[in-house]
Amino acid sequence: MGFSITILGCSSAIPTVDRNPSGQVINFKDRLYLIDCAEGTQLQLRRYMSRIQRLQAIFISHLHGDHFFGLVGLISTLNLLGRKKELHVYGPEGLEEIVMLQLTYSQTQLVYPLFFHATTPGISEVICDEDDFEVVTIPLDHRIPTHGFVFREKRVLPKIRKEVVFSETIPYTEYQRIKEGDDYIMEDGTILPHESLTIPAAPPRSYAYCSDTRYTETIIPFIKDVDLLYHETTFLKDLTEQADLKFHSTAEQAATIAKLADVKKLLIGHYSARYDEPEKLLDEALQVFKETYLSYDGLTINIEKEKTVNA
Amino acid sequence: MGFSITILGCSSAIPTVDRNPSGQVINFKDRLYLIDCAEGTQLQLRRYMSRIQRLQAIFISHLHGDHFFGLVGLISTLNLLGRKKELHVYGPEGLEEIVMLQLTYSQTQLVYPLFFHATTPGISEVICDEDDFEVVTIPLDHRIPTHGFVFREKRVLPKIRKEVVFSETIPYTEYQRIKEGDDYIMEDGTILPHESLTIPAAPPRSYAYCSDTRYTETIIPFIKDVDLLYHETTFLKDLTEQADLKFHSTAEQAATIAKLADVKKLLIGHYSARYDEPEKLLDEALQVFKETYLSYDGLTINIEKEKTVNA
Repeated sequence: MGFSITILGCSSAIPTVDRNPSGQVINFKDRLYLIDCAEGTQLQLRRYMSRIQRLQAIFISHLHGDHFFGLVGLISTLNLLGRKKELHVYGPEGLEEIVMLQLTYSQTQLVYPLFFHATTPGISEVICDEDDFEVVTIPLDHRIPTHGFVFREKRVLPKIRKEVVFSETIPYTEYQRIKEGDDYIMEDGTILPHESLTIPAAPPRSYAYCSDTRYTETIIPFIKDVDLLYHETTFLKDLTEQADLKFHSTAEQAATIAKLADVKKLLIGHYSARYDEPEKLLDEALQVFKETYLSYDGLTINIEKEKTVNA
Repeated sequence: MGFSITILGCSSAIPTVDRNPSGQVINFKDRLYLIDCAEGTQLQLRRYMSRIQRLQAIFISHLHGDHFFGLVGLISTLNLLGRKKELHVYGPEGLEEIVMLQLTYSQTQLVYPLFFHATTPGISEVICDEDDFEVVTIPLDHRIPTHGFVFREKRVLPKIRKEVVFSETIPYTEYQRIKEGDDYIMEDGTILPHESLTIPAAPPRSYAYCSDTRYTETIIPFIKDVDLLYHETTFLKDLTEQADLKFHSTAEQAATIAKLADVKKLLIGHYSARYDEPEKLLDEALQVFKETYLSYDGLTINIEKEKTVNA
């Protein structure tokens, strides 16, 4: 059951020929979720992903242009391509007004249902709650109201062991209760402990997206232990003062957050256009946090399931 | 004194990997004028043009997304790149509201003066009047209010012939009057005719942009005899009915307009994404009008000065 992240853009502010501004896709069990949608994102989506109508929802972190100027174009193109399925957009108050104003002037009639859900500035909340997946907002420290997002797979119940099923000692109707954690008590009073009857499921996987933000340890409780953290690294540490003034982070700061939050892997991006070679940002981050990886447009990272005992 | 057109996008509606939607740049004497600004235009500009801050004005034909969704991004990028010089945007009512709403939400303070000039639907008018150049709107026949544009070089006065200057028979103070068409009368009453004293300037050059539009002969008086006509060719003639329903033109129709208007050259573009090979559209147009050329992203066409006698 796949869980992967594909980078559609890793530039900050200005697109370059090699790097589009922010946009990335989570492919979770063949459903697509877009985070941020800079100008040009629709083309990056078509370049790097197949079947873009599998897009279920879009999450916009904040209303700086390099994070949402491509939204109205994507919404229009999905319409022109004949989308029928509903689409949900989560983002700051104002996004709906911006999109609808443009659709009104262009006299565009959407042929699919489009729903906007405004995020609440300054707090963390569950904004998307599906059977197998939830999305929680993280208040970031940026010039305008900005949220990061944690995409968290929901806990999967353990499986009943094959030998238990074959032995037919336990009625099928008891399986659900056992999966949920109960032991089984035989007619003679013997207790069969939950652990002996089940194979634990892999721990739920998680991905956190934190862009744009100043260095802030307030985000740590939200991103603690995630499998993969994307944290912006607009600057190198020689520009720490500028990073602070512009409400952005350095590579060293991103790596420090990754370390303090005990994440498994750190993915850096949102590079200032001044850096032709983002490897310098990687080198800086690696000094602090070994499991750091560099974003580039088109990169896909899989979040693998942890192997479980007897699985 | 250069006058060239560079195609930044020639797709209709949806961007493809090879073709961006509408956008083109007129380079007139090293000043740049942008017509239409689809999503992705800023990147195309940087890909194909140098010194984009030479941009003087932007003309938006209508408020369908494939003609203006890139405007706010371009305006923002010029700001981030530190533009100081004023920028003028000509286009339908609503454009200013759309751009300003987005700049307001993103709390963007422009560091250069930005002026919007609303075009008047349904009429033709001079919207930009410079010393050497004017821009006139052409009402087109599209689903929403749409204008084409004619960029017309202003008449240049003839030069005084070198031999007249060297002979010193005519006072320097008379030159302007003679350039403007007067003959010169010598003290003894001899008339030196204007033509014998001057070298005529090359005729003024002109470029007309007509996209998007249904086939309509009402545009002919506006584009009569232009050096270069860009006319949309969304479809092949087997889809004439669809073209009409969707307020677009076929290649045959564009060529017919070019022929009826006696233009010197026709440039076709705004191809439906269904055509992988726009050469088919060229073949159809060539049946009607021989001087037809195919747009592709990155194409530059120079409008040469006509050679004049003794020039």
